[in-house]
Amino acid sequence: MTDPGSAHGVLRLLLDGQPRTRAELIELTGLARSTVTGRLEELLAAGFVVPSGEAASSGGRPPARFRFNPTARLVLAGDVGATHLTVALADLTGEIVDTVTVAQSIDDGPEAVLTAFAGHARALLSRTGHSTDRLAGTGIGLPGPVEHSTGRPNHPPIMPGWDSYDVVSRITAEFPGPVLVDNDVNIMALGEHTTQYAEVEHLLFVKVATGIGAGVISGGRLHRGAQGAAGDIGHIQAPGHDELCRCGNHGCLEAVASASAIAAQLRTAGLEPRSSLDVVELVRSGNTAATQAVRQAGREIGTVLAACVSLLNPSVIVIGGSLAQAGDCLLAGIRETIYGRSLPLATTELTVAASRTGRQAAVRGAAAMVLQHTLDS
Amino acid sequence: MTDPGSAHGVLRLLLDGQPRTRAELIELTGLARSTVTGRLEELLAAGFVVPSGEAASSGGRPPARFRFNPTARLVLAGDVGATHLTVALADLTGEIVDTVTVAQSIDDGPEAVLTAFAGHARALLSRTGHSTDRLAGTGIGLPGPVEHSTGRPNHPPIMPGWDSYDVVSRITAEFPGPVLVDNDVNIMALGEHTTQYAEVEHLLFVKVATGIGAGVISGGRLHRGAQGAAGDIGHIQAPGHDELCRCGNHGCLEAVASASAIAAQLRTAGLEPRSSLDVVELVRSGNTAATQAVRQAGREIGTVLAACVSLLNPSVIVIGGSLAQAGDCLLAGIRETIYGRSLPLATTELTVAASRTGRQAAVRGAAAMVLQHTLDS
Repeated sequence: MTDPGSAHGVLRLLLDGQPRTRAELIELTGLARSTVTGRLEELLAAGFVVPSGEAASSGGRPPARFRFNPTARLVLAGDVGATHLTVALADLTGEIVDTVTVAQSIDDGPEAVLTAFAGHARALLSRTGHSTDRLAGTGIGLPGPVEHSTGRPNHPPIMPGWDSYDVVSRITAEFPGPVLVDNDVNIMALGEHTTQYAEVEHLLFVKVATGIGAGVISGGRLHRGAQGAAGDIGHIQAPGHDELCRCGNHGCLEAVASASAIAAQLRTAGLEPRSSLDVVELVRSGNTAATQAVRQAGREIGTVLAACVSLLNPSVIVIGGSLAQAGDCLLAGIRETIYGRSLPLATTELTVAASRTGRQAAVRGAAAMVLQHTLDS
Repeated sequence: MTDPGSAHGVLRLLLDGQPRTRAELIELTGLARSTVTGRLEELLAAGFVVPSGEAASSGGRPPARFRFNPTARLVLAGDVGATHLTVALADLTGEIVDTVTVAQSIDDGPEAVLTAFAGHARALLSRTGHSTDRLAGTGIGLPGPVEHSTGRPNHPPIMPGWDSYDVVSRITAEFPGPVLVDNDVNIMALGEHTTQYAEVEHLLFVKVATGIGAGVISGGRLHRGAQGAAGDIGHIQAPGHDELCRCGNHGCLEAVASASAIAAQLRTAGLEPRSSLDVVELVRSGNTAATQAVRQAGREIGTVLAACVSLLNPSVIVIGGSLAQAGDCLLAGIRETIYGRSLPLATTELTVAASRTGRQAAVRGAAAMVLQHTLDS
């Protein structure tokens, strides 16, 4: 349970943009006058709340009103991919103020990648005319399991040099405010959920790219699991398959239906895709083999997602990641087997849709993670 | 968000059994004096809290202290199975005061079953010397999907006559307090979680009996899903299988590894088990075919649970239901494939254990559901 006396109780009430007097905040929270006064002072000092004129007087000095101030502070958001780095500045509602994406290999290790992150962050602050003092906090997504409580990567398979690296200390040394770190698919799920499906209780965000992973929203909150490894659906067995996976097991979904797996299949058919974007390009150009391969990959993904539907009964499944840009053939394959393999009750009102936030999902989610932390602490 | 000014904020503080003064409750909640006084009056009137002597005086009249009163009220709990009915009275901590189990077919329909439930409840109240006025509420588990918000069964496959039946109105007509209804596996998960693993955030309770189902605890709360159909793992496809299931699909886990499926296999081998208890009896008597069949069923269940582990990364999986009484051969099969098919990170600290609450899991969970509702409302 969050502390009912903490600042967030007062701030949550003001998030709707409506200015309120101290007396109104006391009545709405049920908190003592001294408590509300203390919380307001904290929020005013932090810049989250500003005075907003005066209410009508009922005789005597008219009472001051206070409102949420979404642009007073900025959130720094980072999306570290296997081969790219996106850095963004967002306001306190999560709207992106400015952003940059550059090529950056995760293999360069944490020092090089986070130094690049800090450099791009300073450049964004500079070109938007802000100083680091304006930052309320930093959110970063990494392409592997993260122990969310400490912000340390937890045995990530594709991130040499990152295992247990103290990302939080490295960033805290350069920027003020809390630093939150999470798995990239988790923050994509958070970004899609907060911006597009805020009222949805149960949502699954599936990233189909070089690898395959999912972010689980349960009861409106991110479900990270005991070791921060939840959503690792790329290593669920695809029924009827035996392909060797890089994890050492056989028949994993990722070894069958990821962009890498499709690219490998197409190369044996004489085509030459090197990346997921090449596969997307082939589909867009109307190549039949590529279109069939992506649709079949969709079917395999749908079979695994049918199991996820039986277990979690979500109301929305969002398909994102670079292969989602291949368009309807992936989604059609996924829908085909989800609906074929699930009980009718669980799919009657199920929506299976392509991501609407697209490439911004991760940085929007990183910003949302910092805002939630601020509200909860 | 629950209302920080509601009665539960005050009651939660008292659940540890420690008596506290009004001044202490005001300080610990941050609520206004008038708010705490109002909440205490509600709780005293409802009997959840009683005066508990006086604190040391610092001069003047010594302040009164208040404590949680677990035995002041009772919770009525029901576990309606396919062929049995268990009725129990519990105190406000969920401890069972008295209970009875009778043979009762779900096929008799809601009027007959709930009339029997009410009759046994009155008999329990009578023999323990309590009137219905003592009831704080009723919790009931049913063997099918339930729309938890309304308490109505939602297209249950094995409950003729129950679809959309208004269980809440039927019980409210006879007993005071709120009536909460849920799927039986959900309340078993709740019972095991609250009594044995209260500190565990992520737990999966698996019932292996005539059918197979699971209850999902995510972030310490029951994950019911959009239609109350979460945990329906009996209809996830068991890789490599094609057996026809009663749901109309092929290769469902329930058609492969449930007690019914095992009994059917053993009958083709010349044995004559009619129920899950007969299968358990055969295993206990050392029958090799039965032991092998149960262990193989465990392996099939473990393969599906490995997918659940990849998706949810729980820290505890509890195996319950009648077939769990067959002992270690089921658990050994389950562990074998969970550990074989999951990523090491997700299983390093995973516990796979037999249910400790056993047959009381459901009624303990039904009682816990009513208590949580009381605390949240």
